[in-house]
Amino acid sequence: MIILNPAALIDHTLLSPTASTAAFEQLCEEAVEFGCASVCVPPSQLALVSDLLHGSEVAVGTVIGFPLGYETTATKVTAAAEACNLGAGEIDMVIHGGWAQQRDYRRIEAEISEVNRACDGHLLKVIIECCYLDDEQKRQLTDVVVAAGAAYVKTSTGFAPGGATIADVALLSGVANGRIGVKAAGGIRDYMTFAAMVKAGATRIGCSATAQIVEQWLSQQESHV
Amino acid sequence: MIILNPAALIDHTLLSPTASTAAFEQLCEEAVEFGCASVCVPPSQLALVSDLLHGSEVAVGTVIGFPLGYETTATKVTAAAEACNLGAGEIDMVIHGGWAQQRDYRRIEAEISEVNRACDGHLLKVIIECCYLDDEQKRQLTDVVVAAGAAYVKTSTGFAPGGATIADVALLSGVANGRIGVKAAGGIRDYMTFAAMVKAGATRIGCSATAQIVEQWLSQQESHV
Repeated sequence: MIILNPAALIDHTLLSPTASTAAFEQLCEEAVEFGCASVCVPPSQLALVSDLLHGSEVAVGTVIGFPLGYETTATKVTAAAEACNLGAGEIDMVIHGGWAQQRDYRRIEAEISEVNRACDGHLLKVIIECCYLDDEQKRQLTDVVVAAGAAYVKTSTGFAPGGATIADVALLSGVANGRIGVKAAGGIRDYMTFAAMVKAGATRIGCSATAQIVEQWLSQQESHV
Repeated sequence: MIILNPAALIDHTLLSPTASTAAFEQLCEEAVEFGCASVCVPPSQLALVSDLLHGSEVAVGTVIGFPLGYETTATKVTAAAEACNLGAGEIDMVIHGGWAQQRDYRRIEAEISEVNRACDGHLLKVIIECCYLDDEQKRQLTDVVVAAGAAYVKTSTGFAPGGATIADVALLSGVANGRIGVKAAGGIRDYMTFAAMVKAGATRIGCSATAQIVEQWLSQQESHV
């Protein structure tokens, strides 16, 4: 497996509830410098970030129904449409965890489909929050995400008791089987973990430790010369 | 200080992201049985809960911008209006923590005012998430909540690193000085803590451990007879 630039797979993420404007400015600078796929920021920072990244190759991403997923479908739909209007090209939504526990997949698929329509062609990633699910639920929810027409299934919000695991990424990736992408997020803080996630089938990585991952990748490249 | 029925001050709360329909049914039964002020549930459970509590004395409450507070103002306003339409009589909203850190009180007041207008006379409680704030910020934000016309200032979401403290409740209550109510929430799990919060000035308590608090209060009453 050859990774040309790990940053190209990274959604450079800042979702702390107390982050300052200066921190979002730094996030955008780093994303451009490293060549990240996107930045992932709160909805209320989209106007700022869209402006800062205008003309760059870095996509603007945000979160909907985050991190608990139990807003109404109407609120998620409205928030997704608003996010697209504010410049978001990528939307990470959280499914309803109560419905997932009850295996009410029909309702989950209907909600994802509605949000996907509101995204109007923009990339929708669906967070299933693996730490609350058994393997059968993870498999079935991956199929639900495919059926609903979203672009990615995503392991975790990073705000639940557990984050991404290699086993979950491999499981989701096996079920997705190339039909949709797999985003791993939550607790990915070094290049070794990053590379293991990619090897397990992740096609996108959500993380904040991008600088450290790129540095570790660079020093590894140098040691191989 | 005489507490006639602690439940009358309690917003009986269930905000777990994986709670089932059965758990919300139980919550409503308990709230009626104990005589709680309200139940506090996710927006997506409002239709169910409003139906279950129809004709009872228990108010229906929900959360907006919860727990991270960084949705756009437009999304918070839409969600609040929708919640009222779905039967919510009480709305607990979270302020924007980034603006609080930057002491951008003008923006916070404008946002609360907008949400309050959308609540159209229904009770608005404003969560300032004390664990991220210094005492000056807590004082100033209490004044902001008063100026914006909300009904309560609330200490915590229960999803941040810290919950309600006696010191914070006393501080908020001193600044509020009867102009608005003070709701303590986050980590209140026994009658001793409940009573200490009320003594410090809390006029409403958000908790899930209502059964335990009522039981402990009852056994204390009996031991005094």
